[in-house]
Amino acid sequence: MTTLPRLIIERCHYLAECTEQPGAITRPFASEAMRCAHELVGEWMSEAGMSVRHDNIGNLRGRYGGEGGATLLLGSHLDSVRDAGKYDGPLGVITAIAAVQRLHDAGRRLPFAVEVLAFADEEGLRYGTTYLGSRALAGAFEWRDLERVDSAAIKMADAIRAFGGDPDLIVEDRWAGDPPLGYVEVHIEQGPVLEARGLPVGLVSVIAGQVRIEVEFLGVAGHAGTVPMEARRDALAAAAEFILTVEAAAATQAGMVATVGKLEVEPGAANVIPGHTRLSFDARHADDGTRVEFTEAMMARAREIARRRKLSFEARVTSQNPAVRCSPRLVKMLTQAAKDAGQRPLELTSGAGHDAVVMSSLTEVGMLFVRCKGGVSHNPAESVTTEDVAVALDVLSRFLDLLAKQ
Amino acid sequence: MTTLPRLIIERCHYLAECTEQPGAITRPFASEAMRCAHELVGEWMSEAGMSVRHDNIGNLRGRYGGEGGATLLLGSHLDSVRDAGKYDGPLGVITAIAAVQRLHDAGRRLPFAVEVLAFADEEGLRYGTTYLGSRALAGAFEWRDLERVDSAAIKMADAIRAFGGDPDLIVEDRWAGDPPLGYVEVHIEQGPVLEARGLPVGLVSVIAGQVRIEVEFLGVAGHAGTVPMEARRDALAAAAEFILTVEAAAATQAGMVATVGKLEVEPGAANVIPGHTRLSFDARHADDGTRVEFTEAMMARAREIARRRKLSFEARVTSQNPAVRCSPRLVKMLTQAAKDAGQRPLELTSGAGHDAVVMSSLTEVGMLFVRCKGGVSHNPAESVTTEDVAVALDVLSRFLDLLAKQ
Repeated sequence: MTTLPRLIIERCHYLAECTEQPGAITRPFASEAMRCAHELVGEWMSEAGMSVRHDNIGNLRGRYGGEGGATLLLGSHLDSVRDAGKYDGPLGVITAIAAVQRLHDAGRRLPFAVEVLAFADEEGLRYGTTYLGSRALAGAFEWRDLERVDSAAIKMADAIRAFGGDPDLIVEDRWAGDPPLGYVEVHIEQGPVLEARGLPVGLVSVIAGQVRIEVEFLGVAGHAGTVPMEARRDALAAAAEFILTVEAAAATQAGMVATVGKLEVEPGAANVIPGHTRLSFDARHADDGTRVEFTEAMMARAREIARRRKLSFEARVTSQNPAVRCSPRLVKMLTQAAKDAGQRPLELTSGAGHDAVVMSSLTEVGMLFVRCKGGVSHNPAESVTTEDVAVALDVLSRFLDLLAKQ
Repeated sequence: MTTLPRLIIERCHYLAECTEQPGAITRPFASEAMRCAHELVGEWMSEAGMSVRHDNIGNLRGRYGGEGGATLLLGSHLDSVRDAGKYDGPLGVITAIAAVQRLHDAGRRLPFAVEVLAFADEEGLRYGTTYLGSRALAGAFEWRDLERVDSAAIKMADAIRAFGGDPDLIVEDRWAGDPPLGYVEVHIEQGPVLEARGLPVGLVSVIAGQVRIEVEFLGVAGHAGTVPMEARRDALAAAAEFILTVEAAAATQAGMVATVGKLEVEPGAANVIPGHTRLSFDARHADDGTRVEFTEAMMARAREIARRRKLSFEARVTSQNPAVRCSPRLVKMLTQAAKDAGQRPLELTSGAGHDAVVMSSLTEVGMLFVRCKGGVSHNPAESVTTEDVAVALDVLSRFLDLLAKQ
């Protein structure tokens, strides 16, 4: 008989078959690929003794009743980015199911119910808006999002209907009844820190706040052969200076990550001096004040670069999220569980956003990160080991036991 | 009655009506827009007393017979880039016709014939290959180019046939008979030097040699929120460092221009560290040795940047043209003509390529540059003044007189 950790890995592989892109994993919100995932995950929930239901937004919820009326929430998401890996999202859902399976196999009930949430949309692939599933559950759904259309011009409301939900009843997806005991999410780290430290798992203390800004430099396009260097107003050279400024500044600020990931050059011909560049600036830090100060300093530097080079400069904040602190109580219990499992309990900042960000508006949240190979994520090369998954399942099970004793 | 310089400007405006893009100037090789241009320019040539013929590649040639058998060639091109200005090309053709008009109006014949060449393709807009017209005339036509297809999948050979030429007879377009006395081209500067010096015209001493290289940096894409700065292998940051290195090095090397005009970033998302960049490097200098040395130094710097950042680096030369020196005899005579016209004769390097580059394989070449507003070219904002055109026409006419006296 296969062990539970191996079963988790096998199920992540099996789930990868639910895709709309043959040979790759692409599982958007409310798609046929998601329906396929719901069939599999729903079966696994049932096998673990859970009652299963679909809500209107398209979350799959499995409930394992407890001796008392309180509920602990576990979960993660089932949707994916385009050409995704197998673990970002599904690992958290499947590990949570496995933890319940253990209880079920032992015929155990806890003093509280455990509800495993398989969220409908965290990545935002189909409608360009993230966290649809957890927002519906946390009561933070944006009603105007129902009017959004996907690349095939299908309205979100229609996609929800086609998937079996009623967009008018999303309000009923909101958590009802007693406040939950908390929300705990297992997730791959999507970064290289655990691997560098030689640790299978880590505890998230805070999910970094984030700002995204669209920056533009406007210079003057000109003939690459005829405009002397000193007469140029090159928008790409200005962008290059900004990129290196951001890189150097972030490198000297502890815990800061800042990225220019997108850069468009106009006119973008080999024989034309660039007259216009548009680039993305993304900065994240666990401390909002530090991030805001850093961002202001970078924008000041950009303005200075533009002024010195006689260009014009524009910046537009496209999104901004404050940092979310995990619940000290849950972090403490997860830490104890990690210690009990023989692990060194490293606290980490999550640079990526997670459903836990939204769930923090409903209840206390905690996150357990699992080491992933090379820190690679959003990529078919995503990889975790059975040994590390075993540790994660062990820590999660011990956490449930600790909570049961309280 | 309108003066000849004003007529030149008016004709440049009138010719702008011959376009395949309403509201803008786009006149590709062998197009209906070019047929329109041939009708107008052919009439103007006839009015100036020239016999007119079309050759197979699609050049329009007007010949004004002389008292002797020798021939001086004047000209430029009638095709344009997309969304072009009015003067790049046409100004040279129309000014040459005006110089002949002057002779014709005065009933004068020179000791040599004057042939005005209106070249069919210098920009390469339609088939991505430049100088089709002058190459046919200079005997440097590439026969395999006939197989090229345009964006509508029309073969060049078929386009030539549709325009009235016979692709099999392009060999007959080659200059036949006695070697010409030279080729002189009037052209807008397409740069800001004359404007900066306050001069209406300048003499080209050399057309810069040029190299174009496609450079690639290959790093590792990663999550913008989770990979710490010190663990990144950011292909865009490497590109930025290269861009600033090139800019700084070119600025300190007299007469050098170097440009990164094109930069593609993959995957190119705000939340992903760039894993791959592809950029163009273009360097030009009047001295080939200086350019080659500069280019090698820049590629060594790029390799060093890649090595230090643990990226891989590739470079591929996509085109290379040596510098073309204008004929000292023609430059001397143009200089004298400029002085006779009361102008300070400034010698310039042309950073842009021109039909004169190809014509230099057939005969001695000389070029007269005309100041253009802000140095702007390849742009609807291209602008020259009637006063400057009057100077150019005066210098060209005086040049003809000087040559006639030899």
